[in-house]
Amino acid sequence: MKSTEPVCQYELKAARDAMEVIQGKWRIPIVISLTYGTKRFGEIHRDIPDISPKMLSQELKALEENKLITRTLHDSMPVTVEYALTPLGMSLRELLDELRNWGKHFRGEIVGK
Amino acid sequence: MKSTEPVCQYELKAARDAMEVIQGKWRIPIVISLTYGTKRFGEIHRDIPDISPKMLSQELKALEENKLITRTLHDSMPVTVEYALTPLGMSLRELLDELRNWGKHFRGEIVGK
Repeated sequence: MKSTEPVCQYELKAARDAMEVIQGKWRIPIVISLTYGTKRFGEIHRDIPDISPKMLSQELKALEENKLITRTLHDSMPVTVEYALTPLGMSLRELLDELRNWGKHFRGEIVGK
Repeated sequence: MKSTEPVCQYELKAARDAMEVIQGKWRIPIVISLTYGTKRFGEIHRDIPDISPKMLSQELKALEENKLITRTLHDSMPVTVEYALTPLGMSLRELLDELRNWGKHFRGEIVGK
């Protein structure tokens, strides 16, 4: 097979955009954690124990800026802060499913052979 | 809604594995470039002009190590090197489609509003 068809730059840009939003070690785990429901900071931290609190704050902020999650302050005693996925964050579901599926497939191929 | 169901660590690990393989700015563009057919180094570079040759070499090597692409040396005049997706590399197709789709959706939501 010999084909030198150039790539479609628009398609490439869209995939890059997506990668930029979910990049790094932590954003995907945080979004997955929130697919299990609205959570407080400590609850997310319990799901992802190897992240530092500082990094978790920072990544939650980045996800909020990209409109994937909301941060809601409850004027309770004590004050609580809850994080939840927005509809845009929830729209990551199919992509997360594919990431999981492919991750399992990859592991099976690499480790299993 | 108030739910504090903890995340499934196995699911989270699989998604993280996938992210690790396709991480960074360049691997996805390289894989997408090769979905358009077997290519030589210069042809991939033409698809992704903003990558440095050194970085392209490095990322091709990483993709080869993860068994996503093959590197074939042809004893021609001059000698040519061709890169192609392996079946494992081709199995990224659905994930790439989802990345593109979600990237377009994200852009529409963020820019369009």
